[in-house]
Formats: sequence, structure tokens, C-alpha cells
Amino acid sequence: MPTATPKTYAPGECYDYQLLVKHLLESPRIFASDQEILYRDRFRMTYRDLFARLRRLANVLAGLGVKFGDTVCMFDYDSHRYLETFLGVPMMGAVLHTQNWRLSPEQILYTMNHAEDKVVLVHADFVPLLEPLWRKLTTVKKFILLADDFKTPAATIPFAGEYESLLAAADPEYDFPDFDERTKATTFYTTGTTGLPKGVYFSHRQIVLHTQSGVIIQGAFESVCRFRSNDVYMPLTPMFHVHAWGVPYGATLLGAKQVYPGRYEPETILRLVETERVTYSHCVPTVLQMILNHPAAAKADLSRWKVVVGGARLNKGLAEAAVKKGIEIYASYGMSETCPLACRANLKTPLLGKPMEEVLDYLIMTGLPAPFVYVRLFDKEGREVPSDGRSPGEVCLRSPWLAESYFKDPERTRDLWRAGWLHTGDIGVMNAEGYLQVTDRIKDVIKTGGEWISSLDLENLLSQHDAVLESAAIGVSDAKWGERPLMLAVLKSAYAGRVGEAELRQFLVEAAQQGKIPKYGVPDKVRIVEALPKTSVGKINKIALRKEYP
Amino acid sequence: MPTATPKTYAPGECYDYQLLVKHLLESPRIFASDQEILYRDRFRMTYRDLFARLRRLANVLAGLGVKFGDTVCMFDYDSHRYLETFLGVPMMGAVLHTQNWRLSPEQILYTMNHAEDKVVLVHADFVPLLEPLWRKLTTVKKFILLADDFKTPAATIPFAGEYESLLAAADPEYDFPDFDERTKATTFYTTGTTGLPKGVYFSHRQIVLHTQSGVIIQGAFESVCRFRSNDVYMPLTPMFHVHAWGVPYGATLLGAKQVYPGRYEPETILRLVETERVTYSHCVPTVLQMILNHPAAAKADLSRWKVVVGGARLNKGLAEAAVKKGIEIYASYGMSETCPLACRANLKTPLLGKPMEEVLDYLIMTGLPAPFVYVRLFDKEGREVPSDGRSPGEVCLRSPWLAESYFKDPERTRDLWRAGWLHTGDIGVMNAEGYLQVTDRIKDVIKTGGEWISSLDLENLLSQHDAVLESAAIGVSDAKWGERPLMLAVLKSAYAGRVGEAELRQFLVEAAQQGKIPKYGVPDKVRIVEALPKTSVGKINKIALRKEYP
Repeated sequence: MPTATPKTYAPGECYDYQLLVKHLLESPRIFASDQEILYRDRFRMTYRDLFARLRRLANVLAGLGVKFGDTVCMFDYDSHRYLETFLGVPMMGAVLHTQNWRLSPEQILYTMNHAEDKVVLVHADFVPLLEPLWRKLTTVKKFILLADDFKTPAATIPFAGEYESLLAAADPEYDFPDFDERTKATTFYTTGTTGLPKGVYFSHRQIVLHTQSGVIIQGAFESVCRFRSNDVYMPLTPMFHVHAWGVPYGATLLGAKQVYPGRYEPETILRLVETERVTYSHCVPTVLQMILNHPAAAKADLSRWKVVVGGARLNKGLAEAAVKKGIEIYASYGMSETCPLACRANLKTPLLGKPMEEVLDYLIMTGLPAPFVYVRLFDKEGREVPSDGRSPGEVCLRSPWLAESYFKDPERTRDLWRAGWLHTGDIGVMNAEGYLQVTDRIKDVIKTGGEWISSLDLENLLSQHDAVLESAAIGVSDAKWGERPLMLAVLKSAYAGRVGEAELRQFLVEAAQQGKIPKYGVPDKVRIVEALPKTSVGKINKIALRKEYP
Repeated sequence: MPTATPKTYAPGECYDYQLLVKHLLESPRIFASDQEILYRDRFRMTYRDLFARLRRLANVLAGLGVKFGDTVCMFDYDSHRYLETFLGVPMMGAVLHTQNWRLSPEQILYTMNHAEDKVVLVHADFVPLLEPLWRKLTTVKKFILLADDFKTPAATIPFAGEYESLLAAADPEYDFPDFDERTKATTFYTTGTTGLPKGVYFSHRQIVLHTQSGVIIQGAFESVCRFRSNDVYMPLTPMFHVHAWGVPYGATLLGAKQVYPGRYEPETILRLVETERVTYSHCVPTVLQMILNHPAAAKADLSRWKVVVGGARLNKGLAEAAVKKGIEIYASYGMSETCPLACRANLKTPLLGKPMEEVLDYLIMTGLPAPFVYVRLFDKEGREVPSDGRSPGEVCLRSPWLAESYFKDPERTRDLWRAGWLHTGDIGVMNAEGYLQVTDRIKDVIKTGGEWISSLDLENLLSQHDAVLESAAIGVSDAKWGERPLMLAVLKSAYAGRVGEAELRQFLVEAAQQGKIPKYGVPDKVRIVEALPKTSVGKINKIALRKEYP
């Protein structure tokens, strides 16, 4: 176990520079001291303020007993406070547990006890969620209230105080220590298909290297949808979910203006994009869908906005709708276990300067590996498959920031790491140019008569029908073929009642006739449904669908 | 001592990802396989070719007995071959010694024996230099000839073969091993004011982290003079000198087109800028001066060209001349011991979009620290001086890529590292915005009547006189004041005989009247001379000047 070791240096002894989160801050301290960070219309500060507040936060937490290696749990919407814990908690040598408040109460209780949280920061809105649980927490010693209006909600939780008041009362001086770069910095839980949530965790070294590569792939490579120091950043992937893809760390390193939107409300988001001149965001497809379909989007000027889409496949239909609104868009790929950066759909240099429409098929691919990332596709026997755009293999990765194990779970770690490669559980193909396309989760592949059908390919096709808002393809049991594809589609409200199931199926039949999918891939049935179930991070929940349509 | 350890991975065991030079190549392998790398009009290859040639080179060197930890010495102009050794030698686990062929024969002999070189690659042009030395080399076992025309010069050196022929005959398969990231990758020698050349050396970890930060400061930060994946790169700082500032590593990571100019000839350089559409270069001021003053420059279209100037102060006069030719320009700061990246004169976000003329005073400053670099100014007692733009202090640094010691020289290492800070030997001031301005080498400061005069400030002022090509300010002994400043100036050829010493001095008197320098800073004399002596890396040699004008 590494420990914080204050050190004096002898003459001739060089500084032992560890890759620590605190070192991300030296560049913006000078470059961006007057740059702004804000939380909706509630709070506005400069980077200079941020640094002062980080020191106060560290004193607050130290005062509540947080020591090197202790875990601090954060329950909040995307806020300036969340950014402060992203930085300040690891910089003390403590571990930040970013809590997914969309989990069930049982899962939340499990993860907090499993992570051994010592101090919990909780937004007033989540107090009702925590109220019935807090007495069952086995390791928590203290609670801090996050209240936008400074009001304490009715609850029996023994709060040590409210965040802003505690900060205001704290000592403004704190010296963040040096320690080993392999010290754990963050942890969070990912919910798999079965079983209890799995804890992943990342070290200072991993976060620093991930931040650098993320900044390079999005800034130093020329392509569409760039993120640079003069951009205005607003996350639309919750900060509890893989550090909002790590982008708040990158935005801070670059000294960019940062806008935290709180709870995701389309009207607020659209207003912030316009009033704060937000230029760069990232989200899962369903969030972009939700924003573009909101009535307020029609009037909004989104022509400065660049949006990276990940977490699930960026369908062409959604991409086209975004481009039509003047949004620059491209796809990214990663997962909780990968910190998450793996691939970005950058354009190669010869493709630069072409109109968005011409390059859109590249921009919606899974993409090219980020610097320092190795992507290999292996078949079941562990042999690499050819890069021919057709041969499927499991996507396997190496990079300096991959989860080294599931926390206290050697059994499931053995599935994750095999032969020195992280096995993602995704199936993909790679074309001769080196672009990866993930075609399915292994468990979502539809197997019919010995052939594999990609559910994501079917969904991508149907997304291009004018009437379709979103869709899901799953395999249903079939006596003859083993499985047959079934598609479930949600219509855009303007089309409800005007488009039928047969028409949607016919759209896919025609796609098969054009060679876009094999004929055996055409679903026997397309069902129109009111809505599709979602997971806690906003992806379509196929486990639930398979239960419903066995 | 770390060793190469091939490894098999147990189930559940994660890949031990060390920060190795070879990992810089995975991203361009896919992104830029068809991108070009070329050497003047002599050689042209793709990145795909580069990777094949690296494996052949490793087999050639292994065949000549190069083992893990052995040192390989390179004597060449800037070439594709040099890039191959930058990558291939460290990737084997060997150490690349980049030889400064401008050193004296005695210094060259000393450095090769001190570095314990095992194999030497030498360009035909430098064979006459090596011929009288080679029998005195105590550790060298083999020699490889680098011959642009495949001809072997008359010499007794027992060459094992010619580079291209050896590569062509070598096995094309080689598996670059994994090993500890703190393994030494490169070494070279820096000549100080006194004593023998000092060996500095850098590890794989240092080169990787330096490359990332260099790519970020020049690509992900928005400013003038950016370097991104779609740029065309040509070094104009010799590759023997601090890895050509590490930019070849960054250019390779980004998969940019690379142009190696061979011997620096203004006509060739200007032609390559035009024909190969070079967009990005870096050099010391004297090289830019040489190019701009060449008759061929008048007709050349340099409007696409961006040039980073470092190694010595970028004077305003030179910067203005470059801007007049349509060149984007800015200053950088570093030294051999700092790998070299420390500061770049990036513009802060509020300054973006202003005309070059308005921001030129920022662009010629020493600049802002690169990501992960700490800059502090300490007085003689080790106290930090205020950031007021006036208080001088020694520039001290921390970053993850600073030389940890001088090779086999603990005594001079004790001067370099004090209290955990690398002491640069430079004097500078920092303004309230955080911009550093180096004002002198400590040993070049002119001390007159208890006051300090910055020689660089005097030179920067005189550079703005239309007639002045270059100048140097030094202190000469003075019975009353201790020292008094003397300036030596070289006139542009068009002004020779038309401008006198009194007129130049009057220009400085007027500057003092305008408050640009203190009155006691006006030199008692400005001497017009034919030329100024230069060091082996092209800087003005003030040691020689002080000897000449005691």
C-alpha cells in the first residue's frame, strides 16, 4: 500500500515526478486563471476560485476524518461540486466513489458497503433515496449535504453540514502531498447482465495518461468535432459514469470554459448551449435523441455545437438529424472498464475538408484507436481475424488505463483479462483502413441457422426510416433456426398511427434487396411499441426485452 | 538494471503497460499507413515502409551484437535514417547516442568513449572526421556507413556494411520486446562553459511523456503556429540536438507527413518548403536568420509556414521580418537537460483572433509552461521571487522528463538539482499573467555598479534597428563599475558602410529615454563587426566574445 511521503531532496537528487491528478492543474493555474466554470444559473467561478475551493474541500474532508486511502462517495448531478471532488478527493490521496443514483436502492447499498465508503456527499434530491438506507451502511462515518438552495431536507441522516457552508468555514491553505502514481484515485460500479454490480477503479497514473491521450485524439488530430482550449465544454454523460468519459479532466488541463448542467432537462441544456456558447458536449444516443426531439430544439441555434456520441452505436438516422441542425458529430467507443477511451471516429488526413454528408459513414463508425491503444479482434480460439470488414472477432484491448481488475472479484476478473488482453465482450469487424465497427455485444448477437446477425446493423438501418425514433433488435427462440430476429420500434410522435409494422418491415426487406443486410437477417416481425426500456446509464435494456419477448 | 522480459499472462492478469517508445507507433500504424516520410529528393517512403524498416534495422543491429542496454552512436544529417534510429534503437532496449558532429575531434572522441558506444553509424561526409579517431575508440565494435550514393569513401574504418544494403539483406521480422519504462533510451552531450561535455540521457517513460505534452501544447491548445496531424513537418534543429526538440516523436505519433532536409542549405530548405508544402518547422534564431537573408527567400512563398524558434531568445526584429514574409512564428524555451520542452509562447484564449502584430510581444516571450511543467523563479537564498515582471530569479523547473543526472558526473549533477528543483542557470522574470521572460544566462548577466543589465534585452532592442542583422551584449571589465556593457553588431549587407557605430548607440540612447532600458544600461560602445562566433548548436558564443573583449 503506497503512502503519502513528504520528502526533502538532497543536493543532486532529482524530483521524483509521479503522474498525479494534481499535476494536471499546474498548466491551467497559469493559462486559465480568469476562465469560467459554472453550474446552470446557480453558480459561477473562475479557475482561480476552483483552486482555492479545492484546498478548502480537502480541509473539510480531512476534518471529517478522511485519510490517505479512504473512500469518499459522491451523489450529485453534474455540477461544479462534482468537478471539485474529481480533483480534490484524489489529490488528498483518497478515493472518489462516483455513485450511480439510477441504480436500485439495493444496488446502491451494496456498492457503498463494498467500496467501503467513509464519507458521503449527497444532493438534497437524493436524500429521500438515501434516507431508508443510511442505517445499513457499514463503513460510512459522515454525511455532507449538497443543497443548491442551502435548505436541509427533512431526514434523519446526521449531516455534518452543508457543502458551501463547510467550504466557507474551512482553512484556505492545504498542501496536496506527493505519493505513488499507482495510488487508487477513483472507483465506480458497472452493472452487467447478471449478478451484482462490479467495482472498477483507476489510479492517478491511469487518469493522467487517459487525460493526455483524450486531449490528443480530440485536439491534436485534425478532424471534425475538435475539442481545444478555446472550446466551451458541457458534459451530457453523467459524471458518475466513467468520470463523464474523463473529459472534465481534459477540459481542466486545457483551461477551457466549463458549464455543468445539473439535472438533464432539455430546455435548460438548449438554453445553456445558446447563452453560454457551449461548443463541445458528449452523450449517449438517447440523450441526443431526447434533446433534438424536444420542441425547444426547433428554435435553438445549435450551429456552434459539437457532440461526441458514445456508450451505444451512433445510428445514421440520428447522425443525419444532428447534422441537419448544424451540429458536428462523431462517434466514440469505450466502456467502464476502459476508463473509457478506446476509439474515436476521426477522419484520416485525406478525408479532411469534405462535406459532412460525404464523410458521415466514417464519423459514425466505432473508429480508430486513440494514441497508445491497441485494438485486436480475436476469434474464439484466440487467433486474430483478418481486417477485411467482414470477419467478426471479439474486441480486445491494451492501453495504459484499463481497469486492472474488478474490485475484490478475482472470478469475474479472470473473464475480463485473458492472455494479457482486456476482453470487451463486444463483437466487431475491422476494415482494411483500420476502422473498427462494433456490431454487437457478444450476448446480443442473433444466431440464426448457424449465421450471425448484427442487432446494431439492423437498428442502424431502421434508424434511417423517417418515422422511427428508436429501435431494438433481439433474437427470439425459434424451433427451426435456433433464433430469429425480432425488431421493436418506437415511432416519432408525428408519425404515430400513420406508419404500420408492415411498412417498417418492408423497409428492411428493401435494404436486404439492396445488399445492405443478408436476406436471412430480415426480422420476421417489426413490432411498434410505445417505449423501450433503458438501463441506468440510458442504453436500451436488451435483457429486459429478451425477458419480455422470449 | 532492467532487462527485457518476454512474458506470458495468466487468466485475470492484466497487461503490464509500460510507457515505451514502441507504443508511440500503434496509433500512426493505423492512422497514417500511407502517409509519407522523405529525405530531400533522395528517398521517399510511407509509414508502412517505416515500420518494416525498423524491424530490419533491429535485425541488422542485433546481428552486429547490439544487446539490451548497449549504446549505438549516430552521426548523420537530418534524415529518414535518423528517424529510424530515434525509434528502432530504443525499441530494441538499446540506447541511441546522437552525436553532435560540430564538436571538436577531441570532444567527439571523449563523448564516444564516455558513452561506451558499441556500434557507430556514420554518414560518408563525416568519415574524414572519424578516420583519425576510430582507433582510439575504446568500446566500439562495429561501424555502419551511411552513404546517400552507396559509395564507400576512402578510409581505413572497417565498415560492416552500408545502411541500405544491410537493411535490404536483413530479416523483415522482429518482435520488439517489453521492458521497464525507466530503461535508458537516448543520450547526448551538452557543452557547458567550462570543462568536458556533459552527458544527459532520457528514459522511454520520459520520451513518451515529453512527446504527449509537446503534442498537447502545440496541438490541443489553440493559438498561432499550431502543429497537428495534417501538418507537414520539417526539422531545422539538428536531430543530434535534444532529439530535434522531440518533435520527430510527436510528428510520428500524429502520423504527420515528415520531410528531412539533410544538411541545412537555405536553397534546399526553401525549395522543400514550397514543393513538399512544409507547414511546420523549428529552429534557433540564427538558422531562421540565415534562411530569411538568403537571396532565394525573396521569391519564395512562405505563407503556409509556421516556425517555432527556441534555443536562444527570439528577438523582435527577427520576428517582425518573419511575419512580414507571412510566416507564423512563436518562441519556445528549453535546454538539453529538459528534453527540452519547458515553455511555449502560447496566447491565452482572450488574445486569440487578434492580428499577429498586436500579439507579437506575447509570441516572442519565453512563454507559458507546458502541461505538467512547473516553473519557479528563486533568488540566491532559494526564496520564490514575486511575479511582477521585474524581479529576477533563477528559472527552476520540475517536469516528468528532466535529466535525472549528468552521466557518471555526480559533482556537476549536484549543481543541476538543488532542493528538488532543476536549476537552469537562466535568469528570468515572470509577469502577473504568468508569462516567463528569460533575461540572461546567469553567467552572461552584466553587473554594473550593483545593478544587473540583461544582455538579451539589449540584443532584442538593437534587433529592431533596420540595419542590424545580429548583435551580442557582453560585460567588459571596468575599474569603477565592475563591468560595463559592450555591444557587438553585424550589419545587414545592404547597410554595410552606410550606418555607423554612433548611430547604433544613439538608437539605444533613445530607447533608454523612452524607458525601455535603464540609462545605466546603455552600452558605452557599440562595435560593428563582420561576424559573431557561434557555438556548435548555432548560438552566439559569448565565452569566446568575453575572451576577445575582456
